[in-house]
Order: sequence, then C-alpha cells, then structure tokens
Amino acid sequence: MDENIQHKQKMQKRKQLQSEILATKTEEKGLLIVYTGSGKGKSTAAFGTMFRMVGYGRKVGVVQFIKAPEWQTGERKAAEAFSGLVEWHTMGEGFTWDTQDRQRDIDSCRKAWDKAKELLKRDDLSLVILDELNIALRYDYLPLDEVLQVLGQRPAMQHVIITGRNAKATLIEAADLVTEMTLIKHPFDAGIKAQKGIEY
Amino acid sequence: MDENIQHKQKMQKRKQLQSEILATKTEEKGLLIVYTGSGKGKSTAAFGTMFRMVGYGRKVGVVQFIKAPEWQTGERKAAEAFSGLVEWHTMGEGFTWDTQDRQRDIDSCRKAWDKAKELLKRDDLSLVILDELNIALRYDYLPLDEVLQVLGQRPAMQHVIITGRNAKATLIEAADLVTEMTLIKHPFDAGIKAQKGIEY
Repeated sequence: MDENIQHKQKMQKRKQLQSEILATKTEEKGLLIVYTGSGKGKSTAAFGTMFRMVGYGRKVGVVQFIKAPEWQTGERKAAEAFSGLVEWHTMGEGFTWDTQDRQRDIDSCRKAWDKAKELLKRDDLSLVILDELNIALRYDYLPLDEVLQVLGQRPAMQHVIITGRNAKATLIEAADLVTEMTLIKHPFDAGIKAQKGIEY
Repeated sequence: MDENIQHKQKMQKRKQLQSEILATKTEEKGLLIVYTGSGKGKSTAAFGTMFRMVGYGRKVGVVQFIKAPEWQTGERKAAEAFSGLVEWHTMGEGFTWDTQDRQRDIDSCRKAWDKAKELLKRDDLSLVILDELNIALRYDYLPLDEVLQVLGQRPAMQHVIITGRNAKATLIEAADLVTEMTLIKHPFDAGIKAQKGIEY
C-alpha cells in the first residue's frame, strides 16, 4: 500500500481516538499547578502562563517569596505593559546565604504568605503565582498545613502556580498538574555565566 | 550553640563557596536551549523567556512548526503588546491527526524551516524560538544534519530555544541547556478539559 494512504488511515484512527478521549474531558476548574525539580524553566513557565492569561485580558497576581525587590528581572519589566492586569509583589530578601539570618528569612516569608492569602481570596484574579513558595516550605519557614488549607479554600475557578525545587509530597498530592523540570544539561557546568533575558 | 548563630555561620560558608563558584563563570554566549519531555511547560517556558527578553527591549523571533495560524493563543495575543520587538510566524497546519496528509505535513515543516533559517542569520534577534521543532525532527520531516549545521552557524550571541517531546539525542548533545519536563500529574487524567490561559 502507498505510504501516504497508510499514513492517512493511521491518522484517521488516531483522530477518532483523540475525539473520543476529548469528549470525556468536560470539567473546568481552577487548577493547582506545581513546577518543581532542579532543571531550568520552573518560574519561566509560570511567567509564560501569566502572559498567556493576560493575553485574554484576565488578571494575575504574583507573590515572590525569595527574590528581592531590588533585583531587576525581564519578566517584571515586561509585565509593566499589562499594569492593569498584573499585580506584582516581590516580597523576598534574597537567598538564605545572602541574608544569613534565619529569623529574618522566616519573617519575610510570613509577610509574603500574608500577601498571598489576600490574593487567594480574590475572585477577580484568574491566576495567582506563588514563586519559590516551595523553598519556604522546604525549610519549614511556613506551616504546610495552613498553606494547604488556604489553597483548598480559594475561589473555585482560580488557578494557582507554585514554583521551586523540592516540592513537598503532600503538596504534590493536592495538586492537579505537576511537572518536574529535570536537569539534563546546564550551561553553568561549561563556565557560562547567568545572562540577561535568559536567567533573569 | 544558638540555632541562629549556627545558621549564620553555615550561610557565611555557603555564601563564600557560592562566590568562588560564580567567579569561575565568566563566559557569555548565545545558548542553544532545549525543552523536551512529556510534561507540561515546554512551550510555556519558551514564551516566558520571550517576555523576559522583550522586558529588556531585545528582539525575539518565533517560528511555530505545528500550531496553525487560526488557533488563538494567549501568548500570541500578549506578544502584540510588544509588536516592535516580537516577530511571530505560525507556520504549522495542526497536528498530524488533523491534517491526515503526510506530504502536506512535510511541506509545511519545510516552509517553517525556511523561515527559521532566515531568523537564524539575523543578529538583531537576541532569541529565536523554534516551537515544536522536535516534533518535525522526530518524524523525519526535516533533515537533522541540516538543522544542526544551521544552528551551529547562527550569530554568536543569539539564543535559540527548541521545544517539543522526544528531542533527538544529537540535538541534546549539541545543546547548552536541556530540561526534560517530566510528567508527574496531568489534569486531563481527572477528566478536566484544556482551559483558556492555562493550556493555550
């Protein structure tokens, strides 16, 4: 049989299967999304989703748990083009090895979480991004139980994205969509430094 | 010893180590980045990087190998806010099971690749995104040798991001940064359909 006819028949079958599967996917709800793992692309994917959302004119709230306000990032600059749609709170004070003060880290995580709790009540926000929250949870700077409880009580159609390495198992269990960004190759290993527009 | 003092000393050591490592990372170059794997977030991370880049006023070119121009996506809408900085070419004709025509798939991949080759010569573009190129390579719709050769001859400071499942081993070898998006949990499995602002 001709290769093209064979291909056509195979694809017709696949299309039918695809349609049958799609017909069973009917529910809509706010998703709890977790991007974790040691590979690059966790926060980047979160901010990609943010721009996708504002592309439809919907509102997004961002809380950054580790990054400090004085750090310039391309994503925050780009978000200024959608100032009516993006509410951005950079509440961190830097990495633990920069602050060198455990109590200060805990206090700033608590402040960020208080802000997050406000956003997680607002049904005008289609998406809330909790950037690097996993780091705060990993070091037990915040009580996981409380975080899960607040997430469970948010508006039904509100999507949430949580980023950061070492996501807690209970969080993964509660989530609807989890991707682990697995490190296969990193330019750092080849002596290449962090570059504008790529890493920040 | 007091827990906080212990923490401070540990972090001071870590900071020193961090600074020593950073000092060895001096090179800058255009990176070849591959986002692959079956998890969510590959194209999303690519478009997150696009917005990061335009946030610094730098130019980005996009070629989409599979997605068709009539598909509305939030990222393309959002990119319109940066029309002077983003050059967007949606050259696909849909999934193979939609077209059901192998020769047509090959022809449209070839046309997309011709456009990509133009962008990969231009040093005014800081970043070129070749969305779903891995799919075209996987089905041998394009010759991998030619793709690798053209990538190798692009402007030295131009970053490239290639997305799609099943990246070829030779491409991974040629790349500087590779993340595999590993599927841990997908809402599709729970009967939830693709939602605006999240999936597209």
